[in-house]
Parts: sequence; structure tokens; C-alpha cells
Amino acid sequence: MNSKTIKILGIDPGTGRLGWGLVEKRGQSIVAKDYGCIEATKASPLNERLLAIYRGICAIIREQKPDEVAIEELFFFKNQKTVISVAEARGVILLAATECGLPVFEYTPLQVKQALTGYGRAEKKQMQSMVQLTCKMAERPKPDDAADALAVAICHAQTCQRMLASK
Amino acid sequence: MNSKTIKILGIDPGTGRLGWGLVEKRGQSIVAKDYGCIEATKASPLNERLLAIYRGICAIIREQKPDEVAIEELFFFKNQKTVISVAEARGVILLAATECGLPVFEYTPLQVKQALTGYGRAEKKQMQSMVQLTCKMAERPKPDDAADALAVAICHAQTCQRMLASK
Repeated sequence: MNSKTIKILGIDPGTGRLGWGLVEKRGQSIVAKDYGCIEATKASPLNERLLAIYRGICAIIREQKPDEVAIEELFFFKNQKTVISVAEARGVILLAATECGLPVFEYTPLQVKQALTGYGRAEKKQMQSMVQLTCKMAERPKPDDAADALAVAICHAQTCQRMLASK
Repeated sequence: MNSKTIKILGIDPGTGRLGWGLVEKRGQSIVAKDYGCIEATKASPLNERLLAIYRGICAIIREQKPDEVAIEELFFFKNQKTVISVAEARGVILLAATECGLPVFEYTPLQVKQALTGYGRAEKKQMQSMVQLTCKMAERPKPDDAADALAVAICHAQTCQRMLASK
């Protein structure tokens, strides 16, 4: 049994509000250590928001010292209007993680839902309850973006577990 | 008449080969000062390519000292397969320029073609000939990505000219 502690930083990318969540995985246990949002003024031009996101992610990596990063994958058939700006934000997030030498893992929204609830069409509230339950949190994590980020981190933690279990 | 020299860095974003071109605009004259490509190994994972692009752009900005950056705008209806990765590359390019305090201007492919040839459906060869002619270059600029980058820079230079002329 592998009981090494792994710190996973989950990120829900966005250009207005970006959610992040740090979970610690030791054996079968997953604990939420911290979570929050990087808020970029929607009135700012996109390039300034990208700079704020980049600096915010770099600061979180410095403070939280994750071992791995998990991020939600983007599909162009979802949110066609915002897909380009969210992909631009993803670019600077991937850059920040790679500059720090952190491995990055990507999961589709479907993979995240299935990992947490075993059901690909779970609703937001269900997902948040499962995040709370899995991490044994006293309260449901808020706002939604931070809860989504914790969900991606948990998905990665559980996927690793399954990979180890299947070996 | 405004005869201040402005150095414009044009960028044609991409994740495999990224073209760049520097033009100097003084009054009505536009001169190509330098151009080239940042080559990222296609075999590398995207996050390493983004890091190579970021470092490459930062180095070009340090060496060429542009005053302004012009970049091609991205539409999701064009190249749907690559739109997300190209947008991610755009994210790190915008970040590099913004970190250096450079203003960034965006032009659609249509705007670039119209600025150079007065015709929105000009072909690649025509565009390259117009770049060569406008900048009084001895040879047609190569490869295509560098020529495209010079075209974006020229488009910005000519747009500024028109803005000054219309005042």
C-alpha cells in the first residue's frame, strides 16, 4: 500500500473567476487543505486578466507547494462564446505549472462527474455534496468555482488510486 | 506629420511553429527589420511547447525592443481542431507582452488581407508579395509563418497611419 502524501492542486479555469482547490491524498484518504478563487475584474482587458491569473497561480503554487496539478479539459462544443478566452487562461495556467516543474493532468467534465458520483450527468449540487463528503468537510465548499476545482483535484486523486489498485 | 519611429512586433500564433516579424514605421515608410520563427518540437507535450513559446517571445522582446505588439485574432469557426491549443499559445504570448508593458493590438485575418491587398480573399503568394513590396525587401520573406507575422505588423502600421490621416 502506498501511503505517501501527495498534494494535488485542482484548477477550474476561467477568465472572470478562476477556482482552485488543494487536496492532500494519503492512501485512501483525501482531505481538502485549502481552496479559493482568483478574481479578475471583468472590466479589465483580457491581457491584464491573464497577467492577474498567471501571478495568482504562481503565488498559490509558492504557498501551497503542490506535487501535481489537475485541470479541467476544454471542449469547443461547450461554451463556444467563451472557449477562446478560457483557452487563453488555460495557456497561462499550464505555463505557470510547467515553469515550476509540476506535472499537469487533464480531465474532462464527464470524467470528473463519473469519478465523484459514478454518474456523468450529476448536477452541481450533487457534485458539491460529494466533494464535501469525500473530503469530510464541515460545510459545502463555496463558491461553485472553488468546489469545481476541488472536484477536479479529487478526480485526479481517485484516478491515481484506481491506477495503483489495478496494478 | 508624425515622423516618430515605431517598432511593431507582429505575431502569427501557433503551437508547432510560431512566426514573428519586426517592422519599423516612420511616417509613411515601413521597413522590415527582422523576422523568424519559434519552432517547438511537435513531439513535446503542449505544456512544454507553451513554455518554449513564452521564453522565445520574452527573448525576442528583450532583443528587438518593440513599442507595440500586433497579433492575429482567432476565430473558433476556423481550424476547430486546433483552436484550443492555438488559443492557449495566444494566452502565453499576450502574457509575455503584457508583463513587458507593451500594448497589444489584434487583427482578424480579413483585416490583415484587406490592409495589405485591399481584398479580403487574397492568396498566400499575393500576401507575401505585398509584404515584400511594402517593406522593400530583396526577397520574399520565408517561411510562411514569418511572412504572416510581418503582414500583421504591416496591417497595424497601416491602420495607425490611417487613424492619423483621418484625424
